[in-house]
Amino acid sequence: MTHRWSYDVSGIDDEQFIRGKVPMTKSEVRAVTMSKLRLMKDSRVLDIGAGTGSVTIECARIAKDVTAVERHVEGVELIKANAEAFGVDTVKVIQGLAPDDLPDTTYDRVFIGGSGGQLPDIFHYLDTHLVSGGILVANTITIENTGKILSLLKEGTYDQIDVIQMGVSRSKAVGNSHMMLAENPITILSARKQ
Amino acid sequence: MTHRWSYDVSGIDDEQFIRGKVPMTKSEVRAVTMSKLRLMKDSRVLDIGAGTGSVTIECARIAKDVTAVERHVEGVELIKANAEAFGVDTVKVIQGLAPDDLPDTTYDRVFIGGSGGQLPDIFHYLDTHLVSGGILVANTITIENTGKILSLLKEGTYDQIDVIQMGVSRSKAVGNSHMMLAENPITILSARKQ
Amino acid sequence: MTHRWSYDVSGIDDEQFIRGKVPMTKSEVRAVTMSKLRLMKDSRVLDIGAGTGSVTIECARIAKDVTAVERHVEGVELIKANAEAFGVDTVKVIQGLAPDDLPDTTYDRVFIGGSGGQLPDIFHYLDTHLVSGGILVANTITIENTGKILSLLKEGTYDQIDVIQMGVSRSKAVGNSHMMLAENPITILSARKQ
Amino acid sequence: MTHRWSYDVSGIDDEQFIRGKVPMTKSEVRAVTMSKLRLMKDSRVLDIGAGTGSVTIECARIAKDVTAVERHVEGVELIKANAEAFGVDTVKVIQGLAPDDLPDTTYDRVFIGGSGGQLPDIFHYLDTHLVSGGILVANTITIENTGKILSLLKEGTYDQIDVIQMGVSRSKAVGNSHMMLAENPITILSARKQ
Repeated sequence: MTHRWSYDVSGIDDEQFIRGKVPMTKSEVRAVTMSKLRLMKDSRVLDIGAGTGSVTIECARIAKDVTAVERHVEGVELIKANAEAFGVDTVKVIQGLAPDDLPDTTYDRVFIGGSGGQLPDIFHYLDTHLVSGGILVANTITIENTGKILSLLKEGTYDQIDVIQMGVSRSKAVGNSHMMLAENPITILSARKQ
Repeated sequence: MTHRWSYDVSGIDDEQFIRGKVPMTKSEVRAVTMSKLRLMKDSRVLDIGAGTGSVTIECARIAKDVTAVERHVEGVELIKANAEAFGVDTVKVIQGLAPDDLPDTTYDRVFIGGSGGQLPDIFHYLDTHLVSGGILVANTITIENTGKILSLLKEGTYDQIDVIQMGVSRSKAVGNSHMMLAENPITILSARKQ
Repeated sequence: MTHRWSYDVSGIDDEQFIRGKVPMTKSEVRAVTMSKLRLMKDSRVLDIGAGTGSVTIECARIAKDVTAVERHVEGVELIKANAEAFGVDTVKVIQGLAPDDLPDTTYDRVFIGGSGGQLPDIFHYLDTHLVSGGILVANTITIENTGKILSLLKEGTYDQIDVIQMGVSRSKAVGNSHMMLAENPITILSARKQ
Repeated sequence: MTHRWSYDVSGIDDEQFIRGKVPMTKSEVRAVTMSKLRLMKDSRVLDIGAGTGSVTIECARIAKDVTAVERHVEGVELIKANAEAFGVDTVKVIQGLAPDDLPDTTYDRVFIGGSGGQLPDIFHYLDTHLVSGGILVANTITIENTGKILSLLKEGTYDQIDVIQMGVSRSKAVGNSHMMLAENPITILSARKQ
């Protein structure tokens, strides 16, 4: 049972997370990301470039084996603080760079939130560490990363390759009116390992 | 356990639903709608204007008490067919018009997917049938309904009034390329009953 | 001939305008707004709630009779400064509130960028001051104003009522990558006076 | 003077064009494309992959020297029919493939609406046929072409590289309501030749 989000759905309210200046995946994008990840209770999940850990926390509320990799110490501290705040005690946090600091074990679900410029190496790692039938989801905010990940998926042994672009605007109450303010657009790529 | 979506997340793939010509809330919008509904396992849910029942099915996979109201017989048949296909046997389906054909019981969560032009009457019904602290979510595709529902929320005893607009484009593989095709934009309004 | 935008198209680069803290209609939205205004060289144009005058300047580069109304003195100064910077010397600027401070003359094109909460009175003024066959365009950023203007158009003597919602993201170079950042969404309503 | 669009702005109403089944750049996207092209009256313009000629026609209403290249005979016929319908008699239409069938002359403005898979060759041609200070604008609908064109711009002698993504929804009157329907998203890349 989490302390900060007692609901049995994904898409935790942004305000519930402890945040520094680390960029965070927004609630609506997390809700869709979780859908694309097709998580199951027994999924072993790897979150690469975990940032504040918002996706890690969402995953850990469903699956019991979640590993987060984050290279910045500020992020690592936030992930740990959020795991504690949400009452999620099974998250493993690795401070380091993917794939060099990733363990030699296999995963059923992999989420790439940040890649530290190591996309080809990460995909090489996934060749042997994402199980057949496993699912890869990546969120990108640059045109370059969208193109690189799509290329790597097409060159690799993936099917069900799917890309969505998602734009969300949220209301802000100004006096008695509701002004719409845009969140930045996100591209969500997903595919199944053959 | 569902037959068609064995994953423990919302945002069921559109293709898994039995559909007629009834418009259906798309996967990504359903994932976000579920987040906004803040569903809990013991929530009593009312789905007004249930259409194909795609939101009903998502809710019934989490909460065990879900009532769907739909005025068109084609929709009613689809909801029943989908409930069976997804192995969800606790959905109550009412063929009729809200609020006239709604039962005199209370709900913790109400979703309005279609209103049949009865918004003021529906909100009048909710005054006494949505519990204090309960959550109302409405998806709209017309400017008029967005405006009407926002007005009714502001005039009523609701707080945490929130509006998002969501646009999703999905890739379509054309030869070796991925063309982006837009889904129609959706406005999602949500609020908490005081 | 303008000094700051020597091109024969609308949608002047934002950076070319003198700006204070007054919100400004962005280049892409201005380009579409000009299209919806269906301006002609001999159009008499009224810009209500002119802000920095960015739409005023765009109009004045095509039509020779443009009146801008703006209630804030900071805006009025910016409009004058921009008119001078762009070498547009035919703009009339009225400091005041529409419709009270508007002249008793007729217009072929009216743009509403801000309404100061006076929409019904502005529409009442337009009943007699926007010519038959004239065109009204309004840009809104709140759900309330979108709804109000659409209602007033439907209740009034307008046809060809059209609404578009427009979302633009722009790239920002970060290192060697291009990150996409969203501008806030705009609703553009347009109609023809019967 | 055009017959079908007597207004002195870009962004001609879609309905005014003669169309077959050839995809056409929509009004709002054309308005923004014209802005990005920074057209001048004396610009020599090349439209590659001209399709129905909608951008060609917009350009020819401003600049007097416009060459359209289109490989499909259906498109070539539509461009000619539209040029006649809009009273634009200075458009040169080449049936063929860029860059092989392009003339050995220079241009001030180049628009790429379709590339027929020849992007590297087209950019090689532009190295010597787009003047220094000239402007290149490309509209893309696939992730792959967005990535390729951005790479070619970055590798080439271009500055002011800019990318926007634009999503437009348009109202459709349904009874007394206005439903919002999405056009497909477009990416517009622009840059200046050094």
